[in-house]
Amino acid sequence: MIIGIMGGGQLGRMLALAGYPLGLEFRFLDPNPDAPMRRLAEQITGDYSDVQLLRKFAEGLDLVTWEFENVPLESAHFLEQRVEVYPPPAALEAGQDRLIEKTFFKTESVPTTAFLPVESLFDLEDALVRIGLPAVLKTRRMGYDGKGQAVLRQKADIKAAWEALGGIPLLLEAFVPFQRELSLIGVRGRDGETAFYPLVENHHKEGILHLTLAPAPRLTQELQDEAANHLGRVMEALDYVGVMAMEFFEVNGKLLANEMAPRVHNSGHWTIECAETSQFENHLRAIAGLPLGDTEAVGCAAMVNLIGEIPDPADVLGMPDTHLHLYGKEARPGRKLGHITLRAEDEAVRDTMLLALKGFLPGVDW
Amino acid sequence: MIIGIMGGGQLGRMLALAGYPLGLEFRFLDPNPDAPMRRLAEQITGDYSDVQLLRKFAEGLDLVTWEFENVPLESAHFLEQRVEVYPPPAALEAGQDRLIEKTFFKTESVPTTAFLPVESLFDLEDALVRIGLPAVLKTRRMGYDGKGQAVLRQKADIKAAWEALGGIPLLLEAFVPFQRELSLIGVRGRDGETAFYPLVENHHKEGILHLTLAPAPRLTQELQDEAANHLGRVMEALDYVGVMAMEFFEVNGKLLANEMAPRVHNSGHWTIECAETSQFENHLRAIAGLPLGDTEAVGCAAMVNLIGEIPDPADVLGMPDTHLHLYGKEARPGRKLGHITLRAEDEAVRDTMLLALKGFLPGVDW
Repeated sequence: MIIGIMGGGQLGRMLALAGYPLGLEFRFLDPNPDAPMRRLAEQITGDYSDVQLLRKFAEGLDLVTWEFENVPLESAHFLEQRVEVYPPPAALEAGQDRLIEKTFFKTESVPTTAFLPVESLFDLEDALVRIGLPAVLKTRRMGYDGKGQAVLRQKADIKAAWEALGGIPLLLEAFVPFQRELSLIGVRGRDGETAFYPLVENHHKEGILHLTLAPAPRLTQELQDEAANHLGRVMEALDYVGVMAMEFFEVNGKLLANEMAPRVHNSGHWTIECAETSQFENHLRAIAGLPLGDTEAVGCAAMVNLIGEIPDPADVLGMPDTHLHLYGKEARPGRKLGHITLRAEDEAVRDTMLLALKGFLPGVDW
Repeated sequence: MIIGIMGGGQLGRMLALAGYPLGLEFRFLDPNPDAPMRRLAEQITGDYSDVQLLRKFAEGLDLVTWEFENVPLESAHFLEQRVEVYPPPAALEAGQDRLIEKTFFKTESVPTTAFLPVESLFDLEDALVRIGLPAVLKTRRMGYDGKGQAVLRQKADIKAAWEALGGIPLLLEAFVPFQRELSLIGVRGRDGETAFYPLVENHHKEGILHLTLAPAPRLTQELQDEAANHLGRVMEALDYVGVMAMEFFEVNGKLLANEMAPRVHNSGHWTIECAETSQFENHLRAIAGLPLGDTEAVGCAAMVNLIGEIPDPADVLGMPDTHLHLYGKEARPGRKLGHITLRAEDEAVRDTMLLALKGFLPGVDW
């Protein structure tokens, strides 16, 4: 079975590494000739909207999937006429536009922060009256890793925020004083079977994920069930196939959905070593119509993103139970270059290891 | 770092899959254009003794290693003049010639079965007087998976065995009434650091490995230490770098070394999911001069080879805690096409799972 993957970044690379043992083969479409998946599989290099390339890409494939949610919808629909595409392209719409996403959460009774669309300065002032301060102004499309956002704490912030983001479709959201950020990775098979990894705790800095603790400390069955219910409903409504991630704010013991990602997710990288089946393998099992793999954690984990710089591999690998993943990318400030996963039998040991690892990572402040 | 690998079979393929996350890249040399590593890395296709190809292969590599022990010695020496080669080519000699191997065991005080070289029918008759019946006549070179062997139980067997194998250098070995077969995988770094996986129990059929139980049932610290001592001495004597496997017979609670393999080994495939660090990653860490990874088992495992035919992946993957590895090879009787690893928290659960798996594998009789 040959699977086409839109996007050849680290997520695509890790999908291929997980898929070869299952006997799967891969073809990637990515505009970057130096994409992380290079050398690991066949690559078609060019634009995601190039119809000629899409035709060539689809030729002889059994399935198409993607590793990022900003795949052009028209491209997904074009491919769908030629080859099976999983997840269903409908999931891209919610993944690409925050207004559609939040409206979808509301329709599916998934609790989320209050929100209003903003098209003009007038809309913004009106929305602020209804939502109140503090609030967050966000672009509806193409926001990721904290880009395209402005926090409004007082009326005086309105002008600057509008100047920074105005002119394209926006959304105003209530600012939620949350206790922590959690995320859930779920997977749904072609037959509707679902499985969920344990909730994890995420630490962001300037909108970029820096650290994931898995399972989340102080995780209760109640909280896990609440999260799985929300994500399960969303996947069901979309007749979803594959891995989906949902990010939550925990507010006084309850969950508010922040966003969803219709793909494998950075907060699930720990599953490679510390879950019975990785999120990458489970995404492939789901889309290939195979039974899902077990999602339970094997011990507990910390996943640390390597952002902008890579420590000396010898230092990292000299630590016990430590696993290094490099993506083959050139170093650049703010860029995700790799990650490290620590595996321990309990949280106390994990936290001690994390402290030791910190010594090799100048500049981190988790 | 680009690592050249001689041989692109399943072992090479699994080396590459383990090495990409470490940021390593690979180039393979293999005469088979359809080798299992195809699509996964650059391949140079042709004969292992072709000097022109070897030159092209070595160009720009940081290191060379191999996945099989029958790499021509002259090729290893040729490469050694151009690029660092690990393990040291001297290890190939013992890996290629059973007389050198057994003599080496003797020199290093590693207990092994009695043996005598046989060049003629006269030698054979003489050796039989000194070693006694039953005995095993083996070719000195190119024996693998049970090929090139004949068991002599009575004097009448001599003629047939000589006719089958005679004319090339042979070895007569005492036939040992062993209780079981065990093997040990060890790894030695460039700085002499060593680490050993737990001893495992192997079940062969017609000389081909069918099943590995890891760690070996009823494994005592004493037996583990005995095995590690033997393998450690051998690696030390060769100033070895990389993973080495040693196969043992257990005879009344003591170990007799049967053979060594200067490479990653089929009886170590369980380490991918059920050891903290896999044998493949540890081989690469060792030869790349990185610290070795932890070798402890995470739970207990059974590894089942898929020989000659592949069951329906959906059946296999429908079982809990079950991991499938296919090598991308065309089915052919007696050919290793893949393996399955079961991971469990204890031996009782593992054995129940193994029984369930048997239902999907017609023809197995372990």
